[in-house]
Amino acid sequence: MSCVDKKTDRHWLEVALELASRATIETSPNPKVGCVIVRDGVVIGCGWTQPVGLAHAEVQALRDAAANGMDVRGATAYVTLEPCSHYGRTPPCANALVDAGLARVVAAVGDANPQVAGRGLAILQAAGIEVECATHADLADRAREMNIGFFTRMETGKPWVRMKAAASLDGKTALPNGRSQWITGAEARHDGHAWRARADSILTGIGTVLADDPLLNVRGIDTPRQPLRIVLDSHLRIPVSAKILQGGGALVICAVDDLPKRLALEALGMEVLCLPDASERVSLPSLLLELGRRQINELHVEAGATLNGALIAAGCVDELLIYLAPKLLGEGAGMFALPVLTHVDQAPQLLFHDVAKVGGDVRLLVRFPK
Amino acid sequence: MSCVDKKTDRHWLEVALELASRATIETSPNPKVGCVIVRDGVVIGCGWTQPVGLAHAEVQALRDAAANGMDVRGATAYVTLEPCSHYGRTPPCANALVDAGLARVVAAVGDANPQVAGRGLAILQAAGIEVECATHADLADRAREMNIGFFTRMETGKPWVRMKAAASLDGKTALPNGRSQWITGAEARHDGHAWRARADSILTGIGTVLADDPLLNVRGIDTPRQPLRIVLDSHLRIPVSAKILQGGGALVICAVDDLPKRLALEALGMEVLCLPDASERVSLPSLLLELGRRQINELHVEAGATLNGALIAAGCVDELLIYLAPKLLGEGAGMFALPVLTHVDQAPQLLFHDVAKVGGDVRLLVRFPK
Repeated sequence: MSCVDKKTDRHWLEVALELASRATIETSPNPKVGCVIVRDGVVIGCGWTQPVGLAHAEVQALRDAAANGMDVRGATAYVTLEPCSHYGRTPPCANALVDAGLARVVAAVGDANPQVAGRGLAILQAAGIEVECATHADLADRAREMNIGFFTRMETGKPWVRMKAAASLDGKTALPNGRSQWITGAEARHDGHAWRARADSILTGIGTVLADDPLLNVRGIDTPRQPLRIVLDSHLRIPVSAKILQGGGALVICAVDDLPKRLALEALGMEVLCLPDASERVSLPSLLLELGRRQINELHVEAGATLNGALIAAGCVDELLIYLAPKLLGEGAGMFALPVLTHVDQAPQLLFHDVAKVGGDVRLLVRFPK
Repeated sequence: MSCVDKKTDRHWLEVALELASRATIETSPNPKVGCVIVRDGVVIGCGWTQPVGLAHAEVQALRDAAANGMDVRGATAYVTLEPCSHYGRTPPCANALVDAGLARVVAAVGDANPQVAGRGLAILQAAGIEVECATHADLADRAREMNIGFFTRMETGKPWVRMKAAASLDGKTALPNGRSQWITGAEARHDGHAWRARADSILTGIGTVLADDPLLNVRGIDTPRQPLRIVLDSHLRIPVSAKILQGGGALVICAVDDLPKRLALEALGMEVLCLPDASERVSLPSLLLELGRRQINELHVEAGATLNGALIAAGCVDELLIYLAPKLLGEGAGMFALPVLTHVDQAPQLLFHDVAKVGGDVRLLVRFPK
């Protein structure tokens, strides 16, 4: 393969990534994938993942080519993820590419789904199709980042957990009297709703429900669906009038069952799940595995210092999304209630993944080590 | 003046700013200034401020031209600051430019020094020289930023006060047991020394001296001089063995005089100054005015939460220099001890002036409103 061809591969994979970014959250739990079919340097078909149950990117691109009367035989398909090999809600894309007579398939990254993981590529190779995968590390990384929740769930059985906090420069989320409106500016609050919108589920604790009575839905962002709202409430203390229960469909996780209260919540259309650990608190690892089973790719946490600290201490957080406002509040509530350390080295070294100004505030995306 | 000439002015002012940045901290208390003399689009002389007592930028540029046999008559001088008009340690630069026969002088910004403030430009104009000043707002801003301490001192009689803190992501500067080594990484600590080096003076409190016994000097940075070290010590509790007193020349500020202790400190080569307020604490505004009188342009504060909070509450801080490490410490000491607020709006809205990654940490430069 010539050097020029290599350059071309990179170009078309970037086009495919751009196409993938057009997929909406309705693809979830499927990953966002883009596909462009190219012959002689000319695009003859393109597509991206449709809402769950509808066509994947490859099939969309093949249909696009057919609709335009293009012959895809002998062409190259660039995909942002290894084509699927299993019958799920739709037939395998790898087979569709074979049937269509493609000569070459270039994938940005392999699929972590244990039902696929190399099998998609193997189907293609067995049919005599030339295959290349994950040759460009930076593009593989972008393809993975775009579906960080999907990859995490496939690899660990748990969702990617992103914990959001908004604090003053000195790390306070509220004044001693509980007031917190508004620490950050309108732009940061809007940005926070965009992060809620991309999550499959939003988690909070009973403390936040009792103190702030939040709706915890997506507002001000155009979204085709609301994330599943979850309240951690060990002893089912949640009032049936809580705003988070309005509209039904929320999930309440307890550690000690209370039949009358559970029935009252279920009558309101809520689901109540009892996931106790040995000390009658909610088992956080069990919760994440349960959410993984329910195909939650990204879990967005907006809670108080107690639940935040418990999730961090249990190793259940992948990423912090922190908005820092240029204000000093002095005394007040902190972001995370954590055990006392005796040496600085006991605190794990996290990684600043992204640092950006959002309006007058600063947004920090900080990742925990694997 | 044509559009092309305007563009040229911007270009040459940017060259002059680049020259100004070559001036070292030894120019202090004088501002860093750059000067380029241009005729017919060709540089015929350039210079920048020399260490205090030696030539200013304009004289350097005239000498540079003379040394190269260049005739400056009829040429244009671009300077980053209005030429001085008063006899200080050196004769006025405005007169030197008049004597040299310059035709035109373009200054990035006017001088805030009440002994100059427009008089330098007036001298030039009176001699028939065409003068332009502060025409480019962004360049005027850069010229001012480069000498933020000098401008502040000229305008307020006080230094520019920059308060440095290094904290974890959750705003802690030390663990409950006092340990703080190391919260931030080597790059951030090195960067902190670069900020110490540009300051004329470094201030700390007796609490920090007793707890950490810091040297509080510039280390690992090539600097021609050490900043003046100052300890706020209301009751002269400082031990004569404190590291900050080593090498002599530190300034100890008290609020209650203690003759034997003062004599002991003076015998070690320290200066002791008593600046009490009505409640036997050091008067912070008086301190800043005293430092202004001593021609301190930039004051670097590295202190504990108590003194930090007192300086902030007294409106004595212009800028925060905060290094945030990607670690969570949970419990521990905060950056600023401040009065309790009852409404979020009581906290002044500061401004993120600069946000940057430094090694694995994030550096925030945050300014107080004027």
